Amino acid sequence: MTADSRPAFGKVALLGIGLIGSSLAHAMRRAGLAAHIAGYANQAETLEKARAIGFADTLHDKPGPAVRDADLIVLATPVGAFGEIAKEIAGDLKRGAILSDVGSVKTAVVRDVGPFVPDGVHFIPAHPIAGTEQSGPEAGFAELFDGRWCILTPPPGVDAAALEKLKTFWQRCGSQVEVMDPKHHDLVLAITSHVPHLIAYNIVGTAADLETVTESEVIKYSAGGFRDFTRIAASDPTMWRDVFLNNREAVLEMLGRFSEDLSLLQRAIRWGDGDMLFNLFTRTRAIRRSIIDAGQDIAEPNFGRIKKPPK
Amino acid sequence: MTADSRPAFGKVALLGIGLIGSSLAHAMRRAGLAAHIAGYANQAETLEKARAIGFADTLHDKPGPAVRDADLIVLATPVGAFGEIAKEIAGDLKRGAILSDVGSVKTAVVRDVGPFVPDGVHFIPAHPIAGTEQSGPEAGFAELFDGRWCILTPPPGVDAAALEKLKTFWQRCGSQVEVMDPKHHDLVLAITSHVPHLIAYNIVGTAADLETVTESEVIKYSAGGFRDFTRIAASDPTMWRDVFLNNREAVLEMLGRFSEDLSLLQRAIRWGDGDMLFNLFTRTRAIRRSIIDAGQDIAEPNFGRIKKPPK
Repeated sequence: MTADSRPAFGKVALLGIGLIGSSLAHAMRRAGLAAHIAGYANQAETLEKARAIGFADTLHDKPGPAVRDADLIVLATPVGAFGEIAKEIAGDLKRGAILSDVGSVKTAVVRDVGPFVPDGVHFIPAHPIAGTEQSGPEAGFAELFDGRWCILTPPPGVDAAALEKLKTFWQRCGSQVEVMDPKHHDLVLAITSHVPHLIAYNIVGTAADLETVTESEVIKYSAGGFRDFTRIAASDPTMWRDVFLNNREAVLEMLGRFSEDLSLLQRAIRWGDGDMLFNLFTRTRAIRRSIIDAGQDIAEPNFGRIKKPPK
Repeated sequence: MTADSRPAFGKVALLGIGLIGSSLAHAMRRAGLAAHIAGYANQAETLEKARAIGFADTLHDKPGPAVRDADLIVLATPVGAFGEIAKEIAGDLKRGAILSDVGSVKTAVVRDVGPFVPDGVHFIPAHPIAGTEQSGPEAGFAELFDGRWCILTPPPGVDAAALEKLKTFWQRCGSQVEVMDPKHHDLVLAITSHVPHLIAYNIVGTAADLETVTESEVIKYSAGGFRDFTRIAASDPTMWRDVFLNNREAVLEMLGRFSEDLSLLQRAIRWGDGDMLFNLFTRTRAIRRSIIDAGQDIAEPNFGRIKKPPK
């Protein structure tokens, strides 16, 4: 075995085995990162599905037994459940273990989990910026994190070796890693993820409630743009409820700016200010190009949805 | 030749040969729908590109010569230019010809083009609900309209044979065809296409203007949801400026509802009303499923963007 292919951890406990937890298991397997993967879920149905797929070595319906002797523990349930789980597992955590998570918010995780972290356990919150609109253990796959960013928000005075170990772990799962302050993370994600999800959920709701346009019309003619929003608005409801409840300040701040800007556009349409519209629409095109250049989306038109016959 | 493979038209004139016009040329070629395809563009660069690709039999830098002797004329420039072109070609239109378009708004097209349609010419506005974020003659391809809807908004008293002919034409280009009142069309498209584009353009603009989050951060972490919006916000600026200027009432109406609903969500986040959020997020998931069932989007997660190795 080369140095790079040795398991980075003995036992890894995944508390939550939905889309992200199960993808992490597949990615760990692909890279040989764990000698033993333990999974926890609180629903029998989820455990059954995970057992059938086989991405975990052991499965548990209580978090305590899952984390016992684990070298790395990853909280991967909706973030609203983190505090309770952290409290429940506190007595079972091994000295020297790394406690991390995959939650989409970070100050709330520090607030909810931090108080329960025992001395000698390295608490390093993390957020892989990756996902799909699907959920559940059957939605996971090893490639989910490839080329995506994972943001770590270690507390001041974190153990340098533990931080390095977690960085390497995510890199070997396919990610690029960045370290950030939790508050700044929440602000960045509010604009790159949370507010986009909120407005996608919102417009899909608005469309469904119209009395002048039928739902069947909305569905038939969705290829004009609306269908893109429905993908995001099909994301896991529990996860996203918890995100909004736990990143309130940053989301409200970004939402305020979005609404201000939208009012200006509304006014430009009302008064026929074509130049203002044209200038914005030209500026936004450049950002798309940058995202493709940065490897964060594919260049094919329509996300490559249209299958053309081979030339 | 079977009845279905006879060219439906002798000469077809495409006034505008960007994404939609050029795709239409490719689709006509695929189905053998025209004996002669004439293309018009006002820019030499566009004509050169079209010539290199070769989807038109003749190319013109004036619309008059392009439409002479044409049996079908399709306006395919940004809608803001329709009125002027209609005025310019009025004297060149053949009696019995069908004058149509591919504009994203329909009452404004009736308003701008209608007055210039000579007696004996069948004016039948049309809107294929299809497109990509790319533009220009090199962006076109024959499959663009496959399985998408094309809405015709014929005036009262339209010639039945001409309407039937245009319906068949679009069906042979791969589309499903629906007939609708222009005002209702504009309302439906305001919610399924125009407002989605506006809020996508808007959030990309908001993100670019932030002083607390850098543009480089927005780009790096866009996989959390934002990148989907940038695709739509990369659409052709001139085309979309004209859409908003020409569907003002319906867009402002739908935008008002969107903003009302967004205020409710904002309030739910502020006051921690998780149930309200959860209920909306659950409802919107069902609409995604209906769009996939209706064949208007693909079912693969992330629009199939993540390429997994074959199993």
